[in-house]
Amino acid sequence: MKRAPGALIKGRLITVEGLDGCGKTTQLSLLAQRLAQVSPPVTTMLTLNPGGTPLGKNLRQLLLNEKQTGLTPAPMAELLLYLADRAQHVTQVIRPALEQQQTVLCDRFTDSTVAYQGYGRGFEVAMIHQMNQWSTGGLVPDCTLLFDGPVAALRARLTGEPDRLESENLAFFERTRQGFLDLARQYPRRIHVIDALQSPEAIAEQVWRLVSPLFAERPL
Amino acid sequence: MKRAPGALIKGRLITVEGLDGCGKTTQLSLLAQRLAQVSPPVTTMLTLNPGGTPLGKNLRQLLLNEKQTGLTPAPMAELLLYLADRAQHVTQVIRPALEQQQTVLCDRFTDSTVAYQGYGRGFEVAMIHQMNQWSTGGLVPDCTLLFDGPVAALRARLTGEPDRLESENLAFFERTRQGFLDLARQYPRRIHVIDALQSPEAIAEQVWRLVSPLFAERPL
Repeated sequence: MKRAPGALIKGRLITVEGLDGCGKTTQLSLLAQRLAQVSPPVTTMLTLNPGGTPLGKNLRQLLLNEKQTGLTPAPMAELLLYLADRAQHVTQVIRPALEQQQTVLCDRFTDSTVAYQGYGRGFEVAMIHQMNQWSTGGLVPDCTLLFDGPVAALRARLTGEPDRLESENLAFFERTRQGFLDLARQYPRRIHVIDALQSPEAIAEQVWRLVSPLFAERPL
Repeated sequence: MKRAPGALIKGRLITVEGLDGCGKTTQLSLLAQRLAQVSPPVTTMLTLNPGGTPLGKNLRQLLLNEKQTGLTPAPMAELLLYLADRAQHVTQVIRPALEQQQTVLCDRFTDSTVAYQGYGRGFEVAMIHQMNQWSTGGLVPDCTLLFDGPVAALRARLTGEPDRLESENLAFFERTRQGFLDLARQYPRRIHVIDALQSPEAIAEQVWRLVSPLFAERPL
């Protein structure tokens, strides 16, 4: 079934979440390629938190490049900077793309803030949920893929110099992982947990089975 | 009456608020000088929002120097950046100073966020109050001096190239002024309204009459 010319296809917001090393960035780019190959192609925009805008690139530096900037944001300042980055990103990039019926594939979004700043840093989770809602104007992803695996196994995959957040201790990441899993239990229809230790091909297939129904009104 | 050696004198947080051109910065520095001259001198720290920390200096650039950075924060990102600046400032500068029994004189604080981002930009004021409380850990000034005057008269005093916020239209500043005055009506014991069109000497005397009772347990 071809859609009527000019018919509005709602843009989708698909987010990927998980600890560093979980493979989410690789899978996001595989998904973008696959969506581009369906007929008619789904127009996608690949973006990330933090750093998806010019302002956000500055904030990402302040948040993560401690060695370069010499700056260590206090935990509350860190939380607010992540939210500021996301507010700018939603206003300047994500909402305009969705309004143009584009599908936005976003590397990290509000769930990371709950997991890292709530569970990881220990801020009250209800506060983070409220701040997430305010800072995004209530925007909620249509689908979230959570790549989950044991902390040690994921960390073993990391290469290169760790940034400020990557340098946290294992207990921090264990709490963060639990945060992601708790969110998945709370929002089972939105958040899909994917075993990050499978082969990339197996993961890509699972991702496609989860994501393709979102475009069911289009020929896939 | 001399205080006992080693007796704890609680540090005070005194903030000054008002539109640009209201003379608050001048009066703050006159107040700091006067406090230094009492016997024994009150140890004061003069600081400002935004920009009172190294991280804050970066944020101040991103917030106000649009011409230099080419960046225009969206209204919600602007709000969150002001709050991030303040969170860092409270954690790194203000609370440690208060704990060391210093008196902190701060140029702008939470009331500016209510007035500019709430009344000026039109964000819900209850949300701003909640965010102010979270971002400062509930820190409330002991005394706030609000320098008030007609928008046109205060703007006529401004010299130099206006920054991004100073370039807003008159209606924005009228709303912001009303925001400050509403806050003063809501918190009459904390916020004192001072007519900014008096002579600097008359203002300094009024400031001293308002502030000196805070140090009443000390010989003034």
